Amino acid sequence: MKTLADIGEDALVRLLTRTLKTDNDVLLGPGDDCAVVRMPRGAQSLVLKTDTIVEGVHFTAETPAKWIGRKAMARVLSDFAAMAAIPRHALVTLIAPPTTWVKRVQAIYQGLSKLADEFEVRVVGGETSRGDQLSLTVSLSGFVPARRWITRSAARAGDVLYVTGRLGGSIRGRHLRFQPLVKESLIIAEKLKPTAMMDLSDGLAKDLPRLAAASGVGWHLLLDQIPITAGCSLPQALHDGEDYHLLFATAPTLKKQALMECQALCPGLRFHAIGKLTEGEKSGLLERGGWDHFG
Amino acid sequence: MKTLADIGEDALVRLLTRTLKTDNDVLLGPGDDCAVVRMPRGAQSLVLKTDTIVEGVHFTAETPAKWIGRKAMARVLSDFAAMAAIPRHALVTLIAPPTTWVKRVQAIYQGLSKLADEFEVRVVGGETSRGDQLSLTVSLSGFVPARRWITRSAARAGDVLYVTGRLGGSIRGRHLRFQPLVKESLIIAEKLKPTAMMDLSDGLAKDLPRLAAASGVGWHLLLDQIPITAGCSLPQALHDGEDYHLLFATAPTLKKQALMECQALCPGLRFHAIGKLTEGEKSGLLERGGWDHFG
Repeated sequence: MKTLADIGEDALVRLLTRTLKTDNDVLLGPGDDCAVVRMPRGAQSLVLKTDTIVEGVHFTAETPAKWIGRKAMARVLSDFAAMAAIPRHALVTLIAPPTTWVKRVQAIYQGLSKLADEFEVRVVGGETSRGDQLSLTVSLSGFVPARRWITRSAARAGDVLYVTGRLGGSIRGRHLRFQPLVKESLIIAEKLKPTAMMDLSDGLAKDLPRLAAASGVGWHLLLDQIPITAGCSLPQALHDGEDYHLLFATAPTLKKQALMECQALCPGLRFHAIGKLTEGEKSGLLERGGWDHFG
Repeated sequence: MKTLADIGEDALVRLLTRTLKTDNDVLLGPGDDCAVVRMPRGAQSLVLKTDTIVEGVHFTAETPAKWIGRKAMARVLSDFAAMAAIPRHALVTLIAPPTTWVKRVQAIYQGLSKLADEFEVRVVGGETSRGDQLSLTVSLSGFVPARRWITRSAARAGDVLYVTGRLGGSIRGRHLRFQPLVKESLIIAEKLKPTAMMDLSDGLAKDLPRLAAASGVGWHLLLDQIPITAGCSLPQALHDGEDYHLLFATAPTLKKQALMECQALCPGLRFHAIGKLTEGEKSGLLERGGWDHFG
């Protein structure tokens, strides 16, 4: 088996890029100074996101390599879902020790590009550097129809909060295997007109206050309405993180019919009303029982 | 003095993003799941590039922090120059040990954003993670008029090779202090219609064969025509790397007048004809003396 030091950077880049898929929108792919891609016609805005995963922090030396690559891509796709945006083109930065097996890096890229392919995202370039610790950074660009993106900051007091599935215990596997909710987020955006949306990466207890703060409102969470992964506790559901479900707020006037239609179009998800946003910035309230105004 | 571990991620991000400049094209800046920016009107293509610098590889623990940030931004700007593209929006990924001083990270970002400001590039988002070794990754997006970008791959046998300044010895300071040739590259593109262009990051001896291979041609270098930094040797000029000058090829029919006009518009640069591209893929020839067909 060969290491990165054995083959050198140019050979590594050739190896990693030769199986990448392309399409007509990729005007200039890997191998030049920059990538050049086609922009969509019509009133669209450009959406940009970068995210990084580091060995010992987001995965371990024992994590199967293809899952490392998959996770790096899945996390940025999840951020696109959080905006109801369409991901299109990725740049991949690998930092790795020269002693890393070439096969491990190839498997990382295979996991990454397989998931990219599923979402019709093209890897159009990247960068490699030696370093003491393996890390993988994915920068993703894509598009959203003008003024159609969904921020964290436009929710209002009185809006109802939903999550798209059970929370907690992602370390058992979900943190590697989760499916980014890109298509589902477009359906949610169309059918439910969320006032704010984000993906749950750091746990509801940390992420909900961020959404509320961005919108300048408080929040009120019904603890016994929070969907919990089987075998997990409520604290795990609140704090474990890496759920990669969507948290979104809708106007209280949302019709139950719209929610049911949307639910039917997202058979893999289950929408749970878990609380509401309130007047008064920075207030947060956890409450057990009694409140059943949802749906 | 406080460390990153003392203040935590949310406070760090607030600190780093609060001084960032913005403009009307930034529709959604740092703080949400993704950034959203305006696309230019008209027939433009999207240009994407990422690049990373790692402590112990691209800078040392002793490198002044503001120069680390400046270098990370300058390198991707230089790649945009190599395409004759207009850089616009940056995403910044920082990996750092929790023991890193907050002041050091702030200084890194100050160096980075100061150079970004000079080029009217807006930092619209980013990511931070802990890790054992400091690294900084900048992903840059921007635009180029449709079909106006300059690749490495469209040069032809017979084209004349130029570099924009003296090579070698960049470790003495140029690798930190170089000015990315973004504006100059647009002038070169307009006046000289280069058939291929790239920036010299790994040294002429490594980069020229890449350009020639991408274009499917050989090359012929006149060793005594290569401009060498004062105090450096020819091997240093060929191999040191990190020159960040532009290497470009022009048709042999290029008028001397055009070259002189272009030279006058780029007073900080000096165009040196250093060889030509030849028939025969993968051939490379270094030659001393005798050939003065340039200009």
